[in-house]
Amino acid sequence: MVITKWNELAAVKRELAARDWFPGTSGNLSIKVSDNPLTCLVTVSGKDKYKETETDFVLVDAQGKPLSDEGKPSAETVIHLEVYKKTDAGCSLHVHTLDNNLISELYADKGSITFRNVELIKAFGIWEEDGELTIPIVENWADLPKLGRAIGEKIESKTKAVLIRNHGITVWGKNAFEAKRHLEACEFLFSYQMKLLQAKAANLKEVL
Amino acid sequence: MVITKWNELAAVKRELAARDWFPGTSGNLSIKVSDNPLTCLVTVSGKDKYKETETDFVLVDAQGKPLSDEGKPSAETVIHLEVYKKTDAGCSLHVHTLDNNLISELYADKGSITFRNVELIKAFGIWEEDGELTIPIVENWADLPKLGRAIGEKIESKTKAVLIRNHGITVWGKNAFEAKRHLEACEFLFSYQMKLLQAKAANLKEVL
Amino acid sequence: MVITKWNELAAVKRELAARDWFPGTSGNLSIKVSDNPLTCLVTVSGKDKYKETETDFVLVDAQGKPLSDEGKPSAETVIHLEVYKKTDAGCSLHVHTLDNNLISELYADKGSITFRNVELIKAFGIWEEDGELTIPIVENWADLPKLGRAIGEKIESKTKAVLIRNHGITVWGKNAFEAKRHLEACEFLFSYQMKLLQAKAANLKEVL
Amino acid sequence: MVITKWNELAAVKRELAARDWFPGTSGNLSIKVSDNPLTCLVTVSGKDKYKETETDFVLVDAQGKPLSDEGKPSAETVIHLEVYKKTDAGCSLHVHTLDNNLISELYADKGSITFRNVELIKAFGIWEEDGELTIPIVENWADLPKLGRAIGEKIESKTKAVLIRNHGITVWGKNAFEAKRHLEACEFLFSYQMKLLQAKAANLKEVL
Repeated sequence: MVITKWNELAAVKRELAARDWFPGTSGNLSIKVSDNPLTCLVTVSGKDKYKETETDFVLVDAQGKPLSDEGKPSAETVIHLEVYKKTDAGCSLHVHTLDNNLISELYADKGSITFRNVELIKAFGIWEEDGELTIPIVENWADLPKLGRAIGEKIESKTKAVLIRNHGITVWGKNAFEAKRHLEACEFLFSYQMKLLQAKAANLKEVL
Repeated sequence: MVITKWNELAAVKRELAARDWFPGTSGNLSIKVSDNPLTCLVTVSGKDKYKETETDFVLVDAQGKPLSDEGKPSAETVIHLEVYKKTDAGCSLHVHTLDNNLISELYADKGSITFRNVELIKAFGIWEEDGELTIPIVENWADLPKLGRAIGEKIESKTKAVLIRNHGITVWGKNAFEAKRHLEACEFLFSYQMKLLQAKAANLKEVL
Repeated sequence: MVITKWNELAAVKRELAARDWFPGTSGNLSIKVSDNPLTCLVTVSGKDKYKETETDFVLVDAQGKPLSDEGKPSAETVIHLEVYKKTDAGCSLHVHTLDNNLISELYADKGSITFRNVELIKAFGIWEEDGELTIPIVENWADLPKLGRAIGEKIESKTKAVLIRNHGITVWGKNAFEAKRHLEACEFLFSYQMKLLQAKAANLKEVL
Repeated sequence: MVITKWNELAAVKRELAARDWFPGTSGNLSIKVSDNPLTCLVTVSGKDKYKETETDFVLVDAQGKPLSDEGKPSAETVIHLEVYKKTDAGCSLHVHTLDNNLISELYADKGSITFRNVELIKAFGIWEEDGELTIPIVENWADLPKLGRAIGEKIESKTKAVLIRNHGITVWGKNAFEAKRHLEACEFLFSYQMKLLQAKAANLKEVL
């Protein structure tokens, strides 16, 4: 089971690396291995995630304590564990992109961003004509357990992603496939929103 | 014949995937296999189109009923069938990009966008000095048969592509090569138009 | 000699394809094979330049007449021949990018664009402190021999590239290596200029 | 030792090439081989850094004199040597990107740019809540020894990167891994800053 999950997480890591979503060794990923007790594989701290090695992930328990010796778990393991405790997620992804940082900063005062009338929200299983997708935004507490709790408090039954101000997105799904689908859709929606805002601010419609 | 068409469609899918044009499992593709009766291969619903498998496409008849067992055809098969019924298309491609979504939203009220005085419209076989290319835009009806009919109503003899508001482009050609050529040209034209509008709105010429 | 030149041109085509600089089968490339008589390999018309085949290039004479049977030479062969007749170029590249089209449109009324105080002009061998690089811009005549002549008239001893309005760039060098170096530098300079103009128009310095 | 360092530098060059950070043969890289006497491998002048060859790097001494025969060292070797003399760097990278050129131009009058409240500064080992990262900017002196000295004068104990106006970034780390981590983080921060400035200048918050 561990090797299956390892390979599943490695495949996602490879794809996100190809998108250049780990600048400066940022980002961290995890995949749940067992429920009782809760264990998960999480990226080892400080590694270049554009490279693939045999010590990319380390198994941790529900307190984030390493159960294997690949190295130190990511300092943000506490966030992944919070997600597994509050949801039925099987995989959780945290990455930095220009547009997820921008959205997190621009909408920070509102505390969330909501998307509607745009096809890509279907990636979250939202098929109703007037459906909408809301992503909460939390402040970037340097105290990581505090940050973990702040994220946990924002998680409702439909929540699939949380933005941290100037600190990227944490997004999850019941498995790696779904987590990646949610992440790709979020990033498309963020980039689209940035371009739409710029179009609006510049009154582009008046120069068509 | 089916295997030839399968490989042709797989090759296009691979190229569009390399361009990152299937975010969040969005997009769907089809290729006509026979005219009498009308059958086509269409992408199976909900799959990660960045991956390549032996169940990527399913053969369907003129009503969209599966004729092979690879899985459920894309929910938007009805749009592909509408294209084959209204045109001499041999291949139809539907993808989401930031700029095709933006153009579909900005020009929605006008009902279409027209390009002229730009070399790339030659990709549509338009070589006259004053030639122009028009792409209609339809509302994004959640009712897919209704959306299919709305698209069908916009198709005239010269139409090679239709934009759906906030829901990407559907573009076709007599074969996969031509459909891809049209798609690449459309995306270039959309991105170029967005940048030109921004240049105009910002009065860039006054700061040259 | 032909096979060496073929391989040199194929290598450049592969690199430019990787940059996505041939949207919708646009673009054409050539490399000189002999001086007396003048012959060159030029891209065959209408092919998908993202693919590599054994009929990608055809040998032509000084009038553009094919000397081998790979297919019809690009309709714009006349432009390549003009370059070989007016300069000591050994390789000539014509591609469409968003930013070369934008610059060609924004600066069309001025008839040229000049770069100074930016390091990348060194790619053109300009090392003086106050050196500058000028790229002329011509109108996009549908009559290709006329377009060829218009380009020829703009070529001075230092000219290494000409922009055609809304129709990309033609750039050359004494061999494929130098032509590609010039092209890469031009594209960097165009994109940089577009971003600088936007920064200026938006008075970015006032919000630093 | 030389071969280990060669391979380390070649790996970094390959990654930066994949990011398209060597337009028009620009950019140069070095890695320290020994401290006493100071020797380093530096990129050979004028080569296409998107290609990999057995003469990509040449060993030089503390005065920049070649100790092996791969070719002429980069004209900017003097800058790399200045970095090794003023810091404990083991690897130094100089590249041109659109956004590092833009930041160098926009912030030139201020003489530096400072980042705070953005997670990515952690790539520089800055973990404090109110930590900040400052990157000095120097004028682009055509006299390279003068440019080297200007850079040297800006280097303080915490400095890890210097911008040269319209001439890219020079960034270092104790080894190739750290230098690349710093570079990736800088480029993310520059691009993010450009987008934030544009958002501010356009009052995007008022159209949310």
